Amino acid sequence: MSDKNLTAILYKKGEIRLEDQPVPEPTPGNVQVCMQKVGICGSDVHYWQHGSIGDFIVKAPMVLGHEASGVISKVGQGVTDLKIGDRVAIEPGVPCRLCKYCKTGRYNLCLDMKFCATPPIHGNLARYYTHAADFCFKMPDHVSFEEGALFEPLSVAIHACRRAGVTLGSKVLICGAGPIGLVNLLTAKATGASEVCITDIDQKRLDIAKELGADYTLLVKSRDAKEVAEQLEDMMGEKAEITIECSGAAPSVQTAIYATQSGGCVMLVGLGQAEVTLPIVNAAVREVDIRGLFRYANCYPTALSMVASGKVDVKPLITHRFNLEETLQAFETTARGEGIKVMINCGRS
Amino acid sequence: MSDKNLTAILYKKGEIRLEDQPVPEPTPGNVQVCMQKVGICGSDVHYWQHGSIGDFIVKAPMVLGHEASGVISKVGQGVTDLKIGDRVAIEPGVPCRLCKYCKTGRYNLCLDMKFCATPPIHGNLARYYTHAADFCFKMPDHVSFEEGALFEPLSVAIHACRRAGVTLGSKVLICGAGPIGLVNLLTAKATGASEVCITDIDQKRLDIAKELGADYTLLVKSRDAKEVAEQLEDMMGEKAEITIECSGAAPSVQTAIYATQSGGCVMLVGLGQAEVTLPIVNAAVREVDIRGLFRYANCYPTALSMVASGKVDVKPLITHRFNLEETLQAFETTARGEGIKVMINCGRS
Amino acid sequence: MSDKNLTAILYKKGEIRLEDQPVPEPTPGNVQVCMQKVGICGSDVHYWQHGSIGDFIVKAPMVLGHEASGVISKVGQGVTDLKIGDRVAIEPGVPCRLCKYCKTGRYNLCLDMKFCATPPIHGNLARYYTHAADFCFKMPDHVSFEEGALFEPLSVAIHACRRAGVTLGSKVLICGAGPIGLVNLLTAKATGASEVCITDIDQKRLDIAKELGADYTLLVKSRDAKEVAEQLEDMMGEKAEITIECSGAAPSVQTAIYATQSGGCVMLVGLGQAEVTLPIVNAAVREVDIRGLFRYANCYPTALSMVASGKVDVKPLITHRFNLEETLQAFETTARGEGIKVMINCGRS
Amino acid sequence: MSDKNLTAILYKKGEIRLEDQPVPEPTPGNVQVCMQKVGICGSDVHYWQHGSIGDFIVKAPMVLGHEASGVISKVGQGVTDLKIGDRVAIEPGVPCRLCKYCKTGRYNLCLDMKFCATPPIHGNLARYYTHAADFCFKMPDHVSFEEGALFEPLSVAIHACRRAGVTLGSKVLICGAGPIGLVNLLTAKATGASEVCITDIDQKRLDIAKELGADYTLLVKSRDAKEVAEQLEDMMGEKAEITIECSGAAPSVQTAIYATQSGGCVMLVGLGQAEVTLPIVNAAVREVDIRGLFRYANCYPTALSMVASGKVDVKPLITHRFNLEETLQAFETTARGEGIKVMINCGRS
Repeated sequence: MSDKNLTAILYKKGEIRLEDQPVPEPTPGNVQVCMQKVGICGSDVHYWQHGSIGDFIVKAPMVLGHEASGVISKVGQGVTDLKIGDRVAIEPGVPCRLCKYCKTGRYNLCLDMKFCATPPIHGNLARYYTHAADFCFKMPDHVSFEEGALFEPLSVAIHACRRAGVTLGSKVLICGAGPIGLVNLLTAKATGASEVCITDIDQKRLDIAKELGADYTLLVKSRDAKEVAEQLEDMMGEKAEITIECSGAAPSVQTAIYATQSGGCVMLVGLGQAEVTLPIVNAAVREVDIRGLFRYANCYPTALSMVASGKVDVKPLITHRFNLEETLQAFETTARGEGIKVMINCGRS
Repeated sequence: MSDKNLTAILYKKGEIRLEDQPVPEPTPGNVQVCMQKVGICGSDVHYWQHGSIGDFIVKAPMVLGHEASGVISKVGQGVTDLKIGDRVAIEPGVPCRLCKYCKTGRYNLCLDMKFCATPPIHGNLARYYTHAADFCFKMPDHVSFEEGALFEPLSVAIHACRRAGVTLGSKVLICGAGPIGLVNLLTAKATGASEVCITDIDQKRLDIAKELGADYTLLVKSRDAKEVAEQLEDMMGEKAEITIECSGAAPSVQTAIYATQSGGCVMLVGLGQAEVTLPIVNAAVREVDIRGLFRYANCYPTALSMVASGKVDVKPLITHRFNLEETLQAFETTARGEGIKVMINCGRS
Repeated sequence: MSDKNLTAILYKKGEIRLEDQPVPEPTPGNVQVCMQKVGICGSDVHYWQHGSIGDFIVKAPMVLGHEASGVISKVGQGVTDLKIGDRVAIEPGVPCRLCKYCKTGRYNLCLDMKFCATPPIHGNLARYYTHAADFCFKMPDHVSFEEGALFEPLSVAIHACRRAGVTLGSKVLICGAGPIGLVNLLTAKATGASEVCITDIDQKRLDIAKELGADYTLLVKSRDAKEVAEQLEDMMGEKAEITIECSGAAPSVQTAIYATQSGGCVMLVGLGQAEVTLPIVNAAVREVDIRGLFRYANCYPTALSMVASGKVDVKPLITHRFNLEETLQAFETTARGEGIKVMINCGRS
Repeated sequence: MSDKNLTAILYKKGEIRLEDQPVPEPTPGNVQVCMQKVGICGSDVHYWQHGSIGDFIVKAPMVLGHEASGVISKVGQGVTDLKIGDRVAIEPGVPCRLCKYCKTGRYNLCLDMKFCATPPIHGNLARYYTHAADFCFKMPDHVSFEEGALFEPLSVAIHACRRAGVTLGSKVLICGAGPIGLVNLLTAKATGASEVCITDIDQKRLDIAKELGADYTLLVKSRDAKEVAEQLEDMMGEKAEITIECSGAAPSVQTAIYATQSGGCVMLVGLGQAEVTLPIVNAAVREVDIRGLFRYANCYPTALSMVASGKVDVKPLITHRFNLEETLQAFETTARGEGIKVMINCGRS
């Protein structure tokens, strides 16, 4: 296999191929990026293992990868803010720019969103890739490509903490200590949360959360949502003001409601079963809002500020590293649930 | 029976007695009100029929009534803003004024709230009653006592429309055309909603809604939540931006989610089953917020402004009138679901 | 003069010429509009009389006009939401779609905004004009072209009322009863304001305001800002919660602060002197916010909803009508301050 | 002089006397506090030197002091949340609890506020003092009395950062590096601000700010507001999103406007001349809001969380310490502008 543009392609459920593709040329307003680092996300693995997520079905070969950074290698017509050699983090979704969601600042809800590695849109787990210039964010030299790749999960957390209203002195509960739970922990702390409690069913994850700054951790053993909520209240001294649910497990969503103060908010970040039985009278009469989250909008600039200024340190999240040629091993490692974040090096090794 | 202070007392489930009580004297900061009009609410009837609502149980005789207006007949020490003869609407809940909910403007969530006719607190379906002066709102002469009594359900709607973010040009769906659905219709329209659609399972209620200004009405025949949502979308031309659920019926809550636009909000006003199975992935990935409502805070002044300025006309909601002596008939009429709002005259007939 | 595309061009200060121009062809994403109605705005007249507004200077011939409606006569490549024959209102500013203001929903602050008849961008006072399709809003048949042209000033009022937080029961003061003051009056009322007071130095304008629904009017005779504020407070019974300043006169801006309640807001809509001496300690310690306004964003859809649903009737604002050939007379009439809104018919007469 | 309750009383402009006063007994809902630490505020010194601030005039002897902490020594009737021996920080203003400001969560705007050491209300620079129990906040043992006294200026900063919308990634400019500027610096950082620039005319203060975490400092030498704004923009790389003006100097307020991004906010914290000439057209057309601040509401619990959790370290602000008997020296030290915060020990030395 020659290597003009080695690319990781999901042909169908269970079948990833590494193939050489033509190097794409940037159209007007776009840039060509020499890819450097791409993190693997649970959704990448899910498409590989199941061929679909909800209504999104892999019907044709699709390039994987959407947590990415690289170096500008060519600029399309009309691009003035970026030049060859700029080091950038890539926000993977490009919206239509025309609809009411795009015009009102909620472009993550755009129905014509083109989002990397969400079928049928190709991702950027490759040597070269082209993208809209205004969704590539120039990083200062002291921010690494790995950090840039992590702006993606960090943006999910920024969007979650914003929508949930985390602020100075907030008491926050995070359900689930996987990668998304952990970036929410870091983000909530950086936004001024004075106390953060995090739960999981795996003690190892909680140990990592503790190292990353969690004030309280709870190993969940019961499936009785009220009982877990009471344990949490005992531990924190009162109910949480804001609960960020990152597990998607039905009992955890129920616990989230019971464990949140009147007037507070449950943010649904993790997704599991399509339908869940919820204690809605309990939530309603205590004015506990249940808010959802779809990706993020306008969070990359914040992620960049936070990492560049040292307010958030995402580097400890990276536990495994592979080269692009080792993509399959990288996916297998992620699938086994080892470590936290697996990073692929897209540069020639 | 003598009649110093004829009072309607719920002794226990199913048993309302009319009894003469001592005329209460106002303590400092309080006023004595010569009661004029008291509307009957579904909760009054529910306590009468069932002896409880959720965790609130009638364990001792309790005076009924909380939608009320009257004339100041005596003022307690320190009261300067009201004087004998002032015509007032009575906001029925008096909070502790000390807790964080009271201090942050969400006193409806106060855990020490004393709310008329919620056990064990007495209501005001009587000739005389005392209340905190600052929760009695002076009405101009052209606002009637009946209108003043209706500030209570109107305040529920004001709180709902505020929390839901109804504003200029909003497209609103209201599920349920009972009294609360109808005051939400009036309030949404007055707040600038350009289109309001209302649903019910009773065509007569929808006819009234139409007269009160509904742009669209749907008689719900199916229990398939998605099917009803599609009918609504066809009718309105697009999904609603905001859905105010006033029925409490599980299929209707599900419809509320499916029928609401991405980025919109479902406001839970009506309450039914404690637990309901909800399509939370659908809600979450479209960022449709699910918000609850508990009574209201800071809505009486708005209700007064709206009625006094003629922006809202609540008078058509009153369909039946009784004297205090006929309280049982009034309750029976309400229980039969006749008309919309039953009003009791507490003055000597 | 032939008439392929008769166009009103401001050559320089004081010199408007009517000339035939080539009919423009729509580029991709754009539409060609057969212009129908264009309202004259104070800014159009100001450019004509002074050749500039602030830093915006007419250095080359510029087509006038930006309050406009028309019929789609040709669609550019990729346009799917509009077709020939559609009747549209034209939002006159097209932003860059790439910057942080565009992405966060505040595109009115975009530094690369192309806004009709703001130098050096051409307006649409012509027979034919091309525009971005997504800034043309399709009107139902019962909304007239004149109403469509008035969406522009109405959008200014919608943006003002939104930013100022006008809502159910608001007590609003509007300073200045010119066209912008009057659309603010209509909009505030439609958004639920229960009392609106309006001021001016011209009784005729106040008479019109009264007809359009003002609850109070004050003919301002004094230049003492505090004195006028006291008169207003006496008249309204209390200070306004929100003041929308549409005159731009320094004493009126000062009055706006004194006449606004603690915790309220002064919205600066009218602009006059670049620098004004303000009682900022008075404003600050009463937490009266002073907010500015630049055009509008995301207001055309609301304007359309409001007019189409009958919540706002803007037709009475139109007092004079001219044909495109009579543009100079139309400008002279506007400059004399006669009537309220002067409308030009761009169709062939 | 005996010493039952040694108290620092301002008799009139320029005359502080230390006198023994009766020990006050707590009325219902109140507590008696054995005072520990009281910080001196600029306003205390101003009353001493000038006898008034604006409309607040010292007409009768007034006890000084309002930044305070102590130990509960007696509890009044009905107090259940506090007991003898509890260590508390004292929020110095007690509002009426009845007006619309109290009910809507903005009790700092209450017209009947009783605020320590604002004439004619006595402060707490004494051995014993009584206060509303719900405005005394119990501190854990690891929070010192000095820290508790500093909750007061910290609350000003919390209120400022909240009203200004400081959040994750905010770029903040603070004008003035006195005590209030410095607590704003600490608070903005704790709320997630990624870059904070601070200005002053005194390099020593800027050096302290640098130590406390300022990213940029500017020694202001010019009185040309635009020139200073340009220097700031050069230094920060772009205009600030939020400017917190703590100096009260007219040129600094003007700079604050010029130095703030379109769509941003200037928060007026420092107060100087009653009237200032402002570039309001510049502010308005860029939608730069000018917001005021009066003390704070609901900030003490946040201050407590922040200090107790270690998110904010206020201890470095304390540079001088005196005993109650040395009150005059403490005032003289503060008046000379030495150090940052002067703390008085009210316990028996």
